[in-house]
Amino acid sequence: MKILVLHGPNLNMLGKREPGVYGTGSLGDINASLEELARELAVDIDFIQSNHEGVLIDSLHTAVDDYDAVILNPGALTHYSYALRDAVAAIAIPVVEVHISNIHAREDFRRYSVIAPVAAGQISGFGALGYRLALRAVVEMARVPWTEE
Amino acid sequence: MKILVLHGPNLNMLGKREPGVYGTGSLGDINASLEELARELAVDIDFIQSNHEGVLIDSLHTAVDDYDAVILNPGALTHYSYALRDAVAAIAIPVVEVHISNIHAREDFRRYSVIAPVAAGQISGFGALGYRLALRAVVEMARVPWTEE
Amino acid sequence: MKILVLHGPNLNMLGKREPGVYGTGSLGDINASLEELARELAVDIDFIQSNHEGVLIDSLHTAVDDYDAVILNPGALTHYSYALRDAVAAIAIPVVEVHISNIHAREDFRRYSVIAPVAAGQISGFGALGYRLALRAVVEMARVPWTEE
Amino acid sequence: MKILVLHGPNLNMLGKREPGVYGTGSLGDINASLEELARELAVDIDFIQSNHEGVLIDSLHTAVDDYDAVILNPGALTHYSYALRDAVAAIAIPVVEVHISNIHAREDFRRYSVIAPVAAGQISGFGALGYRLALRAVVEMARVPWTEE
Amino acid sequence: MKILVLHGPNLNMLGKREPGVYGTGSLGDINASLEELARELAVDIDFIQSNHEGVLIDSLHTAVDDYDAVILNPGALTHYSYALRDAVAAIAIPVVEVHISNIHAREDFRRYSVIAPVAAGQISGFGALGYRLALRAVVEMARVPWTEE
Amino acid sequence: MKILVLHGPNLNMLGKREPGVYGTGSLGDINASLEELARELAVDIDFIQSNHEGVLIDSLHTAVDDYDAVILNPGALTHYSYALRDAVAAIAIPVVEVHISNIHAREDFRRYSVIAPVAAGQISGFGALGYRLALRAVVEMARVPWTEE
Amino acid sequence: MKILVLHGPNLNMLGKREPGVYGTGSLGDINASLEELARELAVDIDFIQSNHEGVLIDSLHTAVDDYDAVILNPGALTHYSYALRDAVAAIAIPVVEVHISNIHAREDFRRYSVIAPVAAGQISGFGALGYRLALRAVVEMARVPWTEE
Amino acid sequence: MKILVLHGPNLNMLGKREPGVYGTGSLGDINASLEELARELAVDIDFIQSNHEGVLIDSLHTAVDDYDAVILNPGALTHYSYALRDAVAAIAIPVVEVHISNIHAREDFRRYSVIAPVAAGQISGFGALGYRLALRAVVEMARVPWTEE
Amino acid sequence: MKILVLHGPNLNMLGKREPGVYGTGSLGDINASLEELARELAVDIDFIQSNHEGVLIDSLHTAVDDYDAVILNPGALTHYSYALRDAVAAIAIPVVEVHISNIHAREDFRRYSVIAPVAAGQISGFGALGYRLALRAVVEMARVPWTEE
Amino acid sequence: MKILVLHGPNLNMLGKREPGVYGTGSLGDINASLEELARELAVDIDFIQSNHEGVLIDSLHTAVDDYDAVILNPGALTHYSYALRDAVAAIAIPVVEVHISNIHAREDFRRYSVIAPVAAGQISGFGALGYRLALRAVVEMARVPWTEE
Amino acid sequence: MKILVLHGPNLNMLGKREPGVYGTGSLGDINASLEELARELAVDIDFIQSNHEGVLIDSLHTAVDDYDAVILNPGALTHYSYALRDAVAAIAIPVVEVHISNIHAREDFRRYSVIAPVAAGQISGFGALGYRLALRAVVEMARVPWTEE
Amino acid sequence: MKILVLHGPNLNMLGKREPGVYGTGSLGDINASLEELARELAVDIDFIQSNHEGVLIDSLHTAVDDYDAVILNPGALTHYSYALRDAVAAIAIPVVEVHISNIHAREDFRRYSVIAPVAAGQISGFGALGYRLALRAVVEMARVPWTEE
Repeated sequence: MKILVLHGPNLNMLGKREPGVYGTGSLGDINASLEELARELAVDIDFIQSNHEGVLIDSLHTAVDDYDAVILNPGALTHYSYALRDAVAAIAIPVVEVHISNIHAREDFRRYSVIAPVAAGQISGFGALGYRLALRAVVEMARVPWTEE
Repeated sequence: MKILVLHGPNLNMLGKREPGVYGTGSLGDINASLEELARELAVDIDFIQSNHEGVLIDSLHTAVDDYDAVILNPGALTHYSYALRDAVAAIAIPVVEVHISNIHAREDFRRYSVIAPVAAGQISGFGALGYRLALRAVVEMARVPWTEE
Repeated sequence: MKILVLHGPNLNMLGKREPGVYGTGSLGDINASLEELARELAVDIDFIQSNHEGVLIDSLHTAVDDYDAVILNPGALTHYSYALRDAVAAIAIPVVEVHISNIHAREDFRRYSVIAPVAAGQISGFGALGYRLALRAVVEMARVPWTEE
Repeated sequence: MKILVLHGPNLNMLGKREPGVYGTGSLGDINASLEELARELAVDIDFIQSNHEGVLIDSLHTAVDDYDAVILNPGALTHYSYALRDAVAAIAIPVVEVHISNIHAREDFRRYSVIAPVAAGQISGFGALGYRLALRAVVEMARVPWTEE
Repeated sequence: MKILVLHGPNLNMLGKREPGVYGTGSLGDINASLEELARELAVDIDFIQSNHEGVLIDSLHTAVDDYDAVILNPGALTHYSYALRDAVAAIAIPVVEVHISNIHAREDFRRYSVIAPVAAGQISGFGALGYRLALRAVVEMARVPWTEE
Repeated sequence: MKILVLHGPNLNMLGKREPGVYGTGSLGDINASLEELARELAVDIDFIQSNHEGVLIDSLHTAVDDYDAVILNPGALTHYSYALRDAVAAIAIPVVEVHISNIHAREDFRRYSVIAPVAAGQISGFGALGYRLALRAVVEMARVPWTEE
Repeated sequence: MKILVLHGPNLNMLGKREPGVYGTGSLGDINASLEELARELAVDIDFIQSNHEGVLIDSLHTAVDDYDAVILNPGALTHYSYALRDAVAAIAIPVVEVHISNIHAREDFRRYSVIAPVAAGQISGFGALGYRLALRAVVEMARVPWTEE
Repeated sequence: MKILVLHGPNLNMLGKREPGVYGTGSLGDINASLEELARELAVDIDFIQSNHEGVLIDSLHTAVDDYDAVILNPGALTHYSYALRDAVAAIAIPVVEVHISNIHAREDFRRYSVIAPVAAGQISGFGALGYRLALRAVVEMARVPWTEE
Repeated sequence: MKILVLHGPNLNMLGKREPGVYGTGSLGDINASLEELARELAVDIDFIQSNHEGVLIDSLHTAVDDYDAVILNPGALTHYSYALRDAVAAIAIPVVEVHISNIHAREDFRRYSVIAPVAAGQISGFGALGYRLALRAVVEMARVPWTEE
Repeated sequence: MKILVLHGPNLNMLGKREPGVYGTGSLGDINASLEELARELAVDIDFIQSNHEGVLIDSLHTAVDDYDAVILNPGALTHYSYALRDAVAAIAIPVVEVHISNIHAREDFRRYSVIAPVAAGQISGFGALGYRLALRAVVEMARVPWTEE
Repeated sequence: MKILVLHGPNLNMLGKREPGVYGTGSLGDINASLEELARELAVDIDFIQSNHEGVLIDSLHTAVDDYDAVILNPGALTHYSYALRDAVAAIAIPVVEVHISNIHAREDFRRYSVIAPVAAGQISGFGALGYRLALRAVVEMARVPWTEE
Repeated sequence: MKILVLHGPNLNMLGKREPGVYGTGSLGDINASLEELARELAVDIDFIQSNHEGVLIDSLHTAVDDYDAVILNPGALTHYSYALRDAVAAIAIPVVEVHISNIHAREDFRRYSVIAPVAAGQISGFGALGYRLALRAVVEMARVPWTEE
């Protein structure tokens, strides 16, 4: 089983950026923690971070051939990138949406996700732990064949 | 460690009600699966289901003395019960919000949760698996002392 | 054939409350008039009134085993109780929504019913007569097998 | 006692048009069923169908001299014809609004009726049965002298 | 003269809950302070607290026979309970609405009260003092016969 | 100089309809009063009343050849008939919009006129007098050549 | 009979300001033209112009003792001065609202008048002629005793 | 193959009306150009223009028996005639919506078409050329059997 | 202790203006009643009434040096004067907002106060009694040192 | 004559993605069909597909030197990319907007195009045929010199 | 060259009022710093501060004769004073709008300026420095003749 | 001291694009003028222009190490790019937002900046001069240590 973790805009700044909101761990720390859990769960895992909407869309398009599921933190694209949404809808593998902060407890514009209606599920507010929950989720979902409804 | 699982209105109808949306498992199945995971994680777990907003609020108030965390599926109260929200905000233990279906892919009124801004985190769209993710979340969160920000 | 009539919040005050809006007949008068029509139509009829959303939801859940149809006046819960709506949607017998006053000719908030999209039909503005029309409706609907679309 | 039934735009297409929404009976079937019930209730009944807003308004204006009540299905004019609304308000006999489908379970624009605030009552979602309920309603309302409030 | 004080959801948590917003005094402190003022003003006073909307409605219905006025803090029900509003409108004694915090200086949803249009008056933002002002208000209002307009 | 007065839907009911809002004078009274003023001002005047949007549009189209100005009371079409608006915009003679009642002091939907942005001017709230002011207006406007800006 | 003409903010700039919108005549020209018509109609007329909301309110308050009617062009206060609106509502003589330009054909914020619901009538879009129509209107209205409804 | 071209309100004024927006060609010019293209494509073509919503609805109802497709320019009815929309939805032949001007570059109310969701396709902004594109479209669509989804 | 009572626009018309809404007492009556209570409570009290927003702002600015608290009835400025709001926020003594009528039971625009978020508290709907409650409030608040949060 | 066809995000997935919505033909099929028509019409045609907003903007900027017109399917960027809109507005050759599906019959957010107000025209709902209509349109528009109004 | 600096409501409280938002410098400090820069740039500068909307409007009207440009901080009038906006639009010299705080980072109502569409430019968020930038701006703008578009 | 000037989408078209709105100077002219002022002020200055949101975000991320401040004209990304906003918020050096045209005097969507709440300040409407003001601003701000609040 192979999982792609896709980090959207500004997530490369984790730890350097607004630590009150996003914590002090870096993106490297999150990826390391996911790699450890992936080993424990015996799945392969890869990581991509990009600040370019187009790169994220390209990555989703090609992921369908190489991966069984995607864990996606769309960053602020969550709130307006209908193009990213269409890319999620266009591929036949499950995409789980993760947010580090509780997007419902921040600015109004962060409460609405244009991605969520086409995602397999959404996890928000647990910090770095959210990614690990997402990894467990896609692994458990893979046990029973997943069907896009 | 002791966890309370609080199921809101109509969740007693699970399996009997709109299986296309909520799946065919019953609430008993979910609770059994959670009990199994609780044993594995060595935590105690209790369950309450009620169709009464007032009973849910009373349960949250008393939970603070007996439990370390609450897993709450507020059912349709999610979308209007500011009283339930205040009860969540009033207690000093983490409350994780769970939704079985992907609330973002259904009617418009289901996209907005009045509970989420005061919850510790939100998990939606994973079916019964969402509760197990929530249980893992509260257990992991308990390892590092949890602080309401 | 067995029918349950479910009266929501404040309907016990009928006759005592705002007679300009709701008329001077009491809830007892309405029930008596319905019992008379039920005898004429040769159906059994029971009545529940409650000011508790939770009691109304519980009653709908159990009605599915004992009744062939429900006549529901949700009172002011009409306008916000998504939990009551889910209870109506959760049961496989027809639920007819009745309002004594013309809800469209009053305050703005009364024009919108969160129940109506999942009800079998809606009757409003005929005073106590509306209940008798609803009773005839559920009896006629029972002649041809009713299917939730 | 004399009743006018006024069918608005596109109701002449009943049976031919979107049978999934409106059923397979034709307008002729509805009128025949109403004539039968009218005989049973010993009232006279006439029918007009028009796709012209102006014809419907003219018919309401002249109805006041010849009829005791009007049963009106305004079709899609329900949602924007303030001119039709003013015609309903302008005449001193009761006008009952009927909708074949459950207008609350369809597109958003169908949920709001500009006619309803000035109608004597509204019945929706019962298919052809709704007209028969409306006929019973106007006959029962005539027993007690009807007053526009 | 007899006054009923009705405390809504979560007010039993006063002092324990968000002291930054609601102060450190408990509900018992408020009631004691009201009893003292009641003695001074020579009126009888009773207290009910409930987290159940239905109990609050029932209490208002029965209050009309036993009390001359009601002081009501509806808690978060203020913002959506049209059923509670109808109960206030249904009874012929004055109901004064009290809020401990300045509801206009908090979250947007707290600025709008569905109760206020049918209350005799509203007092907000004075902390526990607000209840004492309300008690004085109902006593002064009783001197001149009170009429619902 | 020749003026066309165009009365829209339901204005034939004047005097018979809601006299509290529209006064007790009939449309004939208004026309007679206008004819008298027209004689005094030495202009020709004609009258059309129709409940048909299409007839009003046709009349505006042909008016451009026979008349120097139009006085138009669009009735409730004021609030939604963009087709009537386009007809007003399509002709090169001034069209003055008149309303008998103060449309700003009634239901919300009556406050907005889709005609007004393309009318030469609007007069509302003066009862039958409004038509006479409009007649004076078009006569005075004719003295200085009128240009559509 | 005595009439007060009240010109609001920026009307002193007429002729100097945006002649494309307001024409090239000055406020003096308008007043002179009104004086001439007043002589013809045998009524007394006075004029006040102020850029101060407070002065306009004071003037309305005192007008009630000295004048039979007021012609008011509130300028841009039309769109937000609820205080001016209350002053209009507070006095028992008719106040006619005049606008030089067609406020419905300009920016969106100019389409809504907070004054209009309490004015005796509104005239807009006729340029300086609008004032003369207003003067005729108040004189004609005075012939039949005017009653605030 | 037989095509009906249906021109809505005010299109008879083409060339005479707002040439800056709609060009200087007349409706006759458009029809002639369509007849020429129809000959080239070997299809029959008929034309109806009406300012009456009812006539347009009647024409759509009868078109289903005589024509293979309809090209419809609803004029300003585009923006509010839900009755016309229902007529389009009621017939089982494709209806292509055409607009001469770019409706998205004009007033806000012109941006929204109530017809478009039930049309087979929409073409706007190409002037008279838009009709010719529509004719080609219906002819090409006829080659592969058209199915309403 | 010294209190300033600040009455906003149109309050000088009290008794003369809309007595159905504001009662028949004059502003002088209210001030006299407040003076009597002030004597009883042994505090000094002064009164200013102005229809000028600027005067009210100036008065608030200077009040900070001479008074311990302000009782402010902003009249209709309540609903739009952000400048008055900033003046309230700019001074370090408590300002209590009073409304004579129940602003929540009147026009929609009166339900929202731009002042309330920065006021120390708000009292509405008690008629003249509201001022006396406000006076008691500021006196009680002065006993414990008041802090702007 | 030289035409550029610009395909936006996710159009490379055509045929693979949601065939119920977009059909089973691939982007290659569409381009091939366009090349065939281009040959027939004797025009040169080039194709670019990109999931990157920036690449689409760059392509529009350079197109102005090499092409006579652009056919643009902006994909989901249609609904939010004001930057793409500005690029369309910045170039002096006609840009025709094409959508494969009927964007008006899908989710609400797809009904509004930020590009359309600056496009030369819009064609939607005809599937792959829409592109061929667009090609005919730009060729016909080139016969008469095109002017941006 | 002569510049008028116009300070609106509450700016006289600078330094005394909410120093967290507006800094600790007084209005005198700002004016002194502007005088220094004016000397350096060899321009004359005058200052007016008023809490009265009418005074600000009067000042703008007379400024046109005495000054070459105006620097205007409208205070909270920014958000609702359409009368002030009209005064800015009425004069033919450039008016630059300045805000001390970042109005976009504060309450929602502060984000929208009714003045900005008619100002020559807007500078916000730089504290006292913003005024100095504005002074440089009007001086540079004067070098090339300024034209109102 | 080192400053980065970041020009967003379509700014490379300056001079070529809509000169009525943006003037006839090119981006090269603006940069040259800034370089001249930079020399005068003795600061280093660099320039980047990109039509790619991702490139702008990357540039902001790396700027924090090499520059003391950023002058950012986000072009149309101003109105929707929450990802760019997060990049501005993520870096600890001041970012000044510049707009060449008066964004408040154009289309509605241009009035709202999603960047402004996290920018150090905003300057709009001064044409190319706005950049020079921004450069002076960042230089003056650097004299007193700048703190993100």
